[in-house]
Amino acid sequence: MTAVLSGTDLGAAVALSCRECGARVELGPSYACTECFGPLEVAYEFRLRGDELRAAIEAGPQNIWRYAPLLPVPSHVASTPNINPGATKLVKAENLGRELGLRNLWVKDDSGNPTHSFKDRVVAVALAAARELGFKVLACPSTGNLANAVAAAAARAGIRSVVFIPSNLEQQKILTTAAYGGTLIAVDGNYDDINRLAGQIAAEQEDWAFVNVNVRPFYAEGSKTLAYEVAESLGWRIPQQVVIPIASGSQLTKVDKGFTELAALGLVDDTPYKIFGAQATGCSPVSQAYKAGQDFVQPVRPDTIAKSLAIGNPADGPYVLDVVNRTGGAVEDVTDEEVVEGIQLLARTEGIFAETAGGVTVAVLRKLLATGKLDPDAETVIFNTGDGLKTLDAIADKVGPTATIKPTLDAFEATGLA
Amino acid sequence: MTAVLSGTDLGAAVALSCRECGARVELGPSYACTECFGPLEVAYEFRLRGDELRAAIEAGPQNIWRYAPLLPVPSHVASTPNINPGATKLVKAENLGRELGLRNLWVKDDSGNPTHSFKDRVVAVALAAARELGFKVLACPSTGNLANAVAAAAARAGIRSVVFIPSNLEQQKILTTAAYGGTLIAVDGNYDDINRLAGQIAAEQEDWAFVNVNVRPFYAEGSKTLAYEVAESLGWRIPQQVVIPIASGSQLTKVDKGFTELAALGLVDDTPYKIFGAQATGCSPVSQAYKAGQDFVQPVRPDTIAKSLAIGNPADGPYVLDVVNRTGGAVEDVTDEEVVEGIQLLARTEGIFAETAGGVTVAVLRKLLATGKLDPDAETVIFNTGDGLKTLDAIADKVGPTATIKPTLDAFEATGLA
Ligand SMILES: Cc1ncc(COP(=O)(O)O)c(C=O)c1O
Ligand SMILES: Cc1ncc(COP(=O)(O)O)c(C=O)c1O
Ligand SMILES: [Zn+2]
Ligand SMILES: [Zn+2]
Repeated sequence: MTAVLSGTDLGAAVALSCRECGARVELGPSYACTECFGPLEVAYEFRLRGDELRAAIEAGPQNIWRYAPLLPVPSHVASTPNINPGATKLVKAENLGRELGLRNLWVKDDSGNPTHSFKDRVVAVALAAARELGFKVLACPSTGNLANAVAAAAARAGIRSVVFIPSNLEQQKILTTAAYGGTLIAVDGNYDDINRLAGQIAAEQEDWAFVNVNVRPFYAEGSKTLAYEVAESLGWRIPQQVVIPIASGSQLTKVDKGFTELAALGLVDDTPYKIFGAQATGCSPVSQAYKAGQDFVQPVRPDTIAKSLAIGNPADGPYVLDVVNRTGGAVEDVTDEEVVEGIQLLARTEGIFAETAGGVTVAVLRKLLATGKLDPDAETVIFNTGDGLKTLDAIADKVGPTATIKPTLDAFEATGLA
Repeated sequence: MTAVLSGTDLGAAVALSCRECGARVELGPSYACTECFGPLEVAYEFRLRGDELRAAIEAGPQNIWRYAPLLPVPSHVASTPNINPGATKLVKAENLGRELGLRNLWVKDDSGNPTHSFKDRVVAVALAAARELGFKVLACPSTGNLANAVAAAAARAGIRSVVFIPSNLEQQKILTTAAYGGTLIAVDGNYDDINRLAGQIAAEQEDWAFVNVNVRPFYAEGSKTLAYEVAESLGWRIPQQVVIPIASGSQLTKVDKGFTELAALGLVDDTPYKIFGAQATGCSPVSQAYKAGQDFVQPVRPDTIAKSLAIGNPADGPYVLDVVNRTGGAVEDVTDEEVVEGIQLLARTEGIFAETAGGVTVAVLRKLLATGKLDPDAETVIFNTGDGLKTLDAIADKVGPTATIKPTLDAFEATGLA
């Protein structure tokens, strides 16, 4: 057991351990194994379990900090200035289920987070750990949602943010990030180019916490809270099937880790679950690897309207394949046209307006049902991780006013819409 | 005491009463007094009070339905398909307070609602009452946020929506409304024209509940939940000062009603509070009336970027004046330029990205402080009622990337931003 950096409070986290070779290193701003270059993840010695843990959680605040005993964050985290994400709705989707022929469908609607994507979760955890580790600046390469989340969280925490985005990103995500007033660098390149650049800058700027690069092990843990919330909302139960969008693949693997922990800690019964991954065909390296039966992922050059998922070289791709294969799930991909249909289907049936990533997830749900990979009778949760307001261009030529009229009763009656 | 329509369950609501002459009519789809044409509002015989009521609320769901005993809704409302708004964050705004010289400032951030404005509250209550009263279609004239809320709520409830908006509305609000798949009528005219048209259509379509016209008394009650949530978040206490944006003025008057009820029911101490109203100068009929010391409101033709507040002939204007004068508050207005500064100030200090209406509120807060009308030492709550993603044009020429670069370390270092 490696000791914690002395004086550092990262809760029940005790070390970083290599996902490939299992080597352990001290808790700190490391992200690659010194033995084998494998990615590091947080290891814990949880202090609470079973009923005691459940009681502590249920007495906690209505945000992700209720799960602080399971996260690598200081014990006083809930009282630090941050944007307190989480506690988003698990919506019973009877209309959508009926339309698709699914008996028991839920939507975990993470558009309810402060900057309207699940990225607020991972950023909040990364920020808490980064401050504890002495970083002064919060930074990231981003496909858009992370940019919003980092800039907002840094503003509220009163620290500087430096955010790198592809210059061709949706205008909504650019302006929103800029509104928070940090440093915003548009880069002529795709996410994979920017990610590489961020790694280079991180090596030079020792005060900068790139949330998804040099403090990635902490960042990634934030996605476990999606699993915790789903299980708690279901009355401490793991659903049988979940469908999760994939960019780097971090979220999907951490939802799996979250369910596994809950079972190991005796908070839920250890019931089987299947995890399904969703990609846009225009950037589907993990889906292609899954379908080819490979255990590695061949990078691709992204070309899809689902820009938030446009990572051609996904860091956690191989681990997604592990999870999906181990749990008996699958990875599927859908065309941009299906993505737009997915957005409209969810909005029309449940009043939830998702961004393209949510459209990917809904469309993959439909495809998995059609191909028989998903059991229509099993309890299923799909993750809507972003907000339609950020990707309006995707639907701009598909929807609009039914009619435009003069402000008179006659004009209205002439429309035949009464 | 007028009896409730037999068989109708609208909770503790027992009648509609005229705000002008006090005449009472049966609970139903009426909105104007048959005696004097004054507006009707919901009257109650509350069944719970004090500790019993507080316990019932605290045992309720994490949304507005925890306050169902204080709303005109059926007792089973929480289990009907709706978008369950509410339980939004009350954010301690220390950075903003420090910058403005306010010691104890909070932001009630209603952008966390399902369609990202407080309108989800009023629509949820209107929908619940409308269904109970037998209406088949949910409709509204809207300045934008209400359009989103009605279309989303109707989609989830599985009923038709018909929404009327000014054709020059922000593209974001048009596309979002359209995404939910209801009927969307763009009207060449301003809100006041559309409101008039809606009144005419409501008179003809007896199955249509125009949430803010023929079921307005029920709709308006939804805004009381803002007062309830603020008080509960503060540990059952009324803040000393609140700043609220004004369009029709409904929200402001109902926040006052909410505080009054809580004190009367023994849930909070009956401490004094001041209510301040915020308008954009380009549509400031209530502010103008306040400053002129009038008790009536002279309609204006709106011209402001704060389109969601652009109601030139505000239905509840005179009642706003009553509330503000009674509590010792004030109404103030700010220029469009100040609105944009307000948006940026809130985003930069607290990581909360507000729409123009929120910019109005923040800018009015600043102005009220500068002119000494607001006490900098008193506990103050400002209401952010909408979301910056819906009014991006307002900031589009003010913010953007700090730099655009090629994806190389050299290019980054050349920016001097390291
Ligand atoms: C809305 C949305 N959903 C899902 C993802 C996927 O995240 P991950 O990189 O953890 O796979 C992203 C990543 O940016 C996203 O923005
Ligand atoms: C964001 C926002 N805030 C405030 C208001 C004011 O509401 P009211 O008409 O109740 O005064 C509106 C009305 O549309 C709004 O959209
Ligand atoms: Zn290793
Ligand atoms: Zn009357």
